[in-house]
Amino acid sequence: MVQSGTTICAPATSGGGAIAVIRMSGEKALEVLSSVFLKDEKKVEPGNLKGYSLHFGSIYDGADFLDEVLVSVFRAPLSYTGEDMVEISCHASSHIQQRLIKLLISKGVTAAAPGEFTMRAFMNGKMDLSQAEAVADLIASESEAAHRLAANQLRGGFSAEISKLRNELLQFASLVELELDFSEEDVEFADRHSMIEKIISIKNLVDSLASSFRLGNAIKNGIPVVIAGRPNVGKSSLLNALLKEERAIVSSIPGTTRDYIEESVHIGGLLFRFIDTAGLRDSDDTIESLGIERTLKKMDEAEVIIALVEASDSESYVREFVGSIKMKAGGKGKTIIVVANKLDMIPEYKEESIVRSISGATALPVIMISATGGTGIEELKEMLLQSVDISNLESPQYIVTNARHYHALEETSSSLEAVLSGFRNGIPTELITTDLRQAIYHLGEITGQITSDEILGEIFRNFCIGK
Amino acid sequence: MVQSGTTICAPATSGGGAIAVIRMSGEKALEVLSSVFLKDEKKVEPGNLKGYSLHFGSIYDGADFLDEVLVSVFRAPLSYTGEDMVEISCHASSHIQQRLIKLLISKGVTAAAPGEFTMRAFMNGKMDLSQAEAVADLIASESEAAHRLAANQLRGGFSAEISKLRNELLQFASLVELELDFSEEDVEFADRHSMIEKIISIKNLVDSLASSFRLGNAIKNGIPVVIAGRPNVGKSSLLNALLKEERAIVSSIPGTTRDYIEESVHIGGLLFRFIDTAGLRDSDDTIESLGIERTLKKMDEAEVIIALVEASDSESYVREFVGSIKMKAGGKGKTIIVVANKLDMIPEYKEESIVRSISGATALPVIMISATGGTGIEELKEMLLQSVDISNLESPQYIVTNARHYHALEETSSSLEAVLSGFRNGIPTELITTDLRQAIYHLGEITGQITSDEILGEIFRNFCIGK
Repeated sequence: MVQSGTTICAPATSGGGAIAVIRMSGEKALEVLSSVFLKDEKKVEPGNLKGYSLHFGSIYDGADFLDEVLVSVFRAPLSYTGEDMVEISCHASSHIQQRLIKLLISKGVTAAAPGEFTMRAFMNGKMDLSQAEAVADLIASESEAAHRLAANQLRGGFSAEISKLRNELLQFASLVELELDFSEEDVEFADRHSMIEKIISIKNLVDSLASSFRLGNAIKNGIPVVIAGRPNVGKSSLLNALLKEERAIVSSIPGTTRDYIEESVHIGGLLFRFIDTAGLRDSDDTIESLGIERTLKKMDEAEVIIALVEASDSESYVREFVGSIKMKAGGKGKTIIVVANKLDMIPEYKEESIVRSISGATALPVIMISATGGTGIEELKEMLLQSVDISNLESPQYIVTNARHYHALEETSSSLEAVLSGFRNGIPTELITTDLRQAIYHLGEITGQITSDEILGEIFRNFCIGK
Repeated sequence: MVQSGTTICAPATSGGGAIAVIRMSGEKALEVLSSVFLKDEKKVEPGNLKGYSLHFGSIYDGADFLDEVLVSVFRAPLSYTGEDMVEISCHASSHIQQRLIKLLISKGVTAAAPGEFTMRAFMNGKMDLSQAEAVADLIASESEAAHRLAANQLRGGFSAEISKLRNELLQFASLVELELDFSEEDVEFADRHSMIEKIISIKNLVDSLASSFRLGNAIKNGIPVVIAGRPNVGKSSLLNALLKEERAIVSSIPGTTRDYIEESVHIGGLLFRFIDTAGLRDSDDTIESLGIERTLKKMDEAEVIIALVEASDSESYVREFVGSIKMKAGGKGKTIIVVANKLDMIPEYKEESIVRSISGATALPVIMISATGGTGIEELKEMLLQSVDISNLESPQYIVTNARHYHALEETSSSLEAVLSGFRNGIPTELITTDLRQAIYHLGEITGQITSDEILGEIFRNFCIGK
């Protein structure tokens, strides 16, 4: 996929604005710049374009003046890609940008593939694969927490952790392999007992990384919350109340299947995606009348389920309703929050006994709200934040946000499990070594110490152009 | 409007992309940068930030890492605004951009008003007003010709021309005013005859500049073309044929009144806006049945009218139809092109006689086309290009594209007319001087030598943020 030897170009900015930046990277970048750029109406020889220098001047297409531009010059290896690089800031007219790109292409420069700049940075050892992936995550980050995870990954925290684990395993592997060389003598360079203990602790760490993926993925893409409840219980009003103060930063995404919509809200630096299944037609079907069936398929995707009832509902209804939700969604690490709406419809003196009755019936804490009046919404938001265990974020290098990393960690874990069971069952050392090497291989996939063209193609295909 | 003494910031890019550029200008720009930016994890003192230097490092919000960025530093007066300036290239996440802007604002930087960077450039003498306006035109330029006009204006060609004229008038004015000082002696420092001749030639130039505005404005905003014709004569097919090859760069703008749509097409470096009034219901009204009434109101705005008939139409129909168009639109400098559609419906041997007959009936050249077959479309495009007299574009400083400049030129012209009629009618020199000063004043408005806060506010209000 990397067009090695070629010089590539692409716009690094998009849309309108005042200025646009066109990027160029590769052996011929300075030469091509020199052929289209005049500074004080004079040509600048490529040899006089120093690294980390800025130049104001004009781009000419032959005799035609194209634009006044500001040019940043970087020289290999001190650039983003590790190659010679040029960034041209021009006026943001789409006409000017198109002509400039065409002009560069006419000079032998190739249009860059998505992510090709970052791929070159990886290929030239400027960053490892997990950092390269963090670049895309950083650009896409929409919330404070997602940004923190991506920023940390970009800065190599996660990579360092993985490399440390991998180096420890490499050490074991070489010791064990050394033993094989001396197999006639039946020596043990590696103390089996302490080695097994070490591998167990590495496996525990790998497992905890892997298990952080669900949370990490939710933080990265927004934490999915389903509001379940029978028709007219106030699902839409609750959603509106949650969105109300945040209206400025709310976005509506029509659901792909057209039977639900999503609204995203930032609460305390986290992005929550509320999946609204309201607006479906009512039904006489008993399960449907509980308002559960329609949300069932969405519940599977949810991290949090808000079980919405009315404050005046009977204890038996609440027990049945919340019970069904627990049955469908329970035991999968999902948080269920019971919310009793229409607080304004009951007399105040009854409030406390209703809370007691619902808590008793559901064995869950209850939040009393009035969605239309706005009462209790702050408390609910607090509860939503608590439902996402962000205590781990204090050391965010331990949060995995990338599905590819997650799968590599899972593979590492099962290879390590095989190593351990090998030791337990007295399997010959040669075979154990194979599993150990597998574990090392999978950890290496994360940082890109082990890669295939196919994996690389898959990763960078999803990048934006110009990065 | 200029918040003098303040330091301003704004995003200079917009939307997605890989990177975003945040701009900062003013006395505190370097100091503020120094307070949020670490290079190799070390603070850089403002005094060590040289002009035209580039720095790679990190932005911190207190202890929080925000992003890895590339910073360009400019020092007054060698910057776009003429003040100390900083451009921060960060990752294009909207979250990062928002936090960075908030961070700068927390350090005492003010959010920039639209166009405020360019307004500061004007205030600090980095460019005159007509060049500042060209910046906005350049960013908005959508076609080659519009780009050429804006680029030329940015580079000061137009300003130089206006300044030259203004200086000549200033010379006359000072000579005439000198005479007033010596009025007792009745001397004439300025030779009346040659002065009148000079003023006439200046007025002619001013008039020709003013008259170029219609063309200049059309080039800048797209040349409006109306296709007139009765229902089913093939208006939509013709439009589709014109759009066909250009589909990639065609944009559809729904008309504000909902009774027409516009399609823009680039032909030979010019942008044509085809105003499509098709799709209106038919009518039995005679004028309506000619298909003219519906396009009348649009004809007033058009530079070019395509009178569309069928090749098989009777000579008398064509005469009446084209005659009505001439009557409604004639004498206003508009180009009328007669196009005979459905060439495929008549036998080939009749073609020549039909062309002769239509030319005879309309006294206009005729283009035979088959909109559905694609025949004749290239010829029509050629004719459209010819209809716009772009010969003036060889010296594009003589094309006025800005309504404000146009009005100033009109005022200049009528003041000069008053000067000339003053001389002819032997009006006292004092009074003539007043008119001469008026002409000088209005020319000065164009380049900003004469400005009011109100005019400035109006001009820069329409800029984009960050420029």
